[in-house]
Amino acid sequence: MIKIATSEDLLNSTDKKQKKIAVAVAEDLEVLSGLKEAIAKQIVSPVLFGNEQKIREVAKLAELSLDNIEVRDTASSDEAVRNALLSVKDGQTQMLMKGGVNTALFLKAVLDKQYGLRKSSLLSHVALFFPPSLSRPVVVTDAALNLQPSLEEKIALINNAVAVLKRLGIETPKVAVLAHNEVVSAKVLASVEAAKLKEMAASGEIKGCIVDGPIALDCALSIEACRHKGLESPVGGCADILLCPDIVSANILYKSMVFLAHANCAAIVEGATVPLVVASRAEDARTKLLSVALAAI
Amino acid sequence: MIKIATSEDLLNSTDKKQKKIAVAVAEDLEVLSGLKEAIAKQIVSPVLFGNEQKIREVAKLAELSLDNIEVRDTASSDEAVRNALLSVKDGQTQMLMKGGVNTALFLKAVLDKQYGLRKSSLLSHVALFFPPSLSRPVVVTDAALNLQPSLEEKIALINNAVAVLKRLGIETPKVAVLAHNEVVSAKVLASVEAAKLKEMAASGEIKGCIVDGPIALDCALSIEACRHKGLESPVGGCADILLCPDIVSANILYKSMVFLAHANCAAIVEGATVPLVVASRAEDARTKLLSVALAAI
Repeated sequence: MIKIATSEDLLNSTDKKQKKIAVAVAEDLEVLSGLKEAIAKQIVSPVLFGNEQKIREVAKLAELSLDNIEVRDTASSDEAVRNALLSVKDGQTQMLMKGGVNTALFLKAVLDKQYGLRKSSLLSHVALFFPPSLSRPVVVTDAALNLQPSLEEKIALINNAVAVLKRLGIETPKVAVLAHNEVVSAKVLASVEAAKLKEMAASGEIKGCIVDGPIALDCALSIEACRHKGLESPVGGCADILLCPDIVSANILYKSMVFLAHANCAAIVEGATVPLVVASRAEDARTKLLSVALAAI
Repeated sequence: MIKIATSEDLLNSTDKKQKKIAVAVAEDLEVLSGLKEAIAKQIVSPVLFGNEQKIREVAKLAELSLDNIEVRDTASSDEAVRNALLSVKDGQTQMLMKGGVNTALFLKAVLDKQYGLRKSSLLSHVALFFPPSLSRPVVVTDAALNLQPSLEEKIALINNAVAVLKRLGIETPKVAVLAHNEVVSAKVLASVEAAKLKEMAASGEIKGCIVDGPIALDCALSIEACRHKGLESPVGGCADILLCPDIVSANILYKSMVFLAHANCAAIVEGATVPLVVASRAEDARTKLLSVALAAI
């Protein structure tokens, strides 16, 4: 396992055993285009579920050769999702990617007990960023799935993000539970729950990571900011995970990483027995490639 | 009035009439150091209220010559604040800066009716950023004062930010009311209130600006992101003001502007009859200089 400091490291750290990725409803131009480079770089080997004729048409548009790629024809999108999930259940594939199907429907199917893919108490969105202004990657969660996570759900968000970073070789990830400063205020729920999460990690109720909060983003990212404020924190200046209090704040941070800080991004949905690649239309090709690579590790 | 695209433009756009700035409890090293360049650049001419002996000692440490600077000795911090406020009331000074005094106490005094400095229904923090990745400045509000603004209070935040931008020559500022996407969802208060604010601006209840929301940060900043999502918005890709739903999300955006996007920042408290400079210890000298310049315009 090499140390992952840049997005190139991420691409080079997959083991080239070409894990099989099941693509549900693969007749989607964005998805096949996004997969193309991951296939070329031998990061994954896809199994495409969906309408075979349409898949072949779209693959042509995406300039993706299907010569060495398995295509499994299905009669409907529902059947494509079902068969893709069954292929994971049966161990024929090791990862799952959403194609041209509604995200909510796709995730609901993933959680359906008949497929046995449910692992964590919650599915959550884990976005790994490589900001040019930092020398290391940092996770933002949850910018896409959980609207206003409760304390219980925040624990699941932490556990899911920690699981992803452990696969990248970070043994004890450092979690910054964000608020607007370092003071616990009864008027700011984010700060109260941050203190509670810190306590739970200290007492061993949350395992495998170091948690501090409430902490503002400057102190989470910069040791100089900590010094300025006189803050001593095991997470200060070296946070691996930035846990935001809700989807709006997390999404603002996510978008500012992309559009203001020009950070490369790899994002997956964690919490199932296999990583889920749920790329959105707005993501560029690089993000899709990196997301598949992150899922493949 | 020159068009302000960069932080240098901001420094060059003050009219060099050297507005007088009252500094309350001026015996503070950070504050006098911060003022030094603004004085050297002839942006302001300070009147220092506080313990004269201490002010002279601290000025020496800050290497600030007091030869042409008025110092008004007071017997206590309370008296320094009071006399600074009275100097604004009497028109002797045109701006106010907080020195070595608690922010909450200082702002409470500003709102005290006897000084007649209250103008807007609410004081709010207006931070003007110059992100290298944009070709124009953008305001973030409110990252410092209002914890969880109500709908009424969000209107005041908009009005205050609009007032600041109008002074910079932006006649009809464009306001993006941020959420995690562009959908109104009953489960996300930020999105519901964003839609309401948009309605109120369209019907003329909020004046002097164009408001759109809910809108995610990517679409507020990038016209390409709007095209990707098929979003047509008068604010999309050209937002002047980013209104965040609460202090935590605003502070996360504020800190990511500084620490991830390396944006220059000028921040003032707006809503009184004169701009207030309430610099925090964590701000660097450049931010303090730019904040004084923003207040002086």
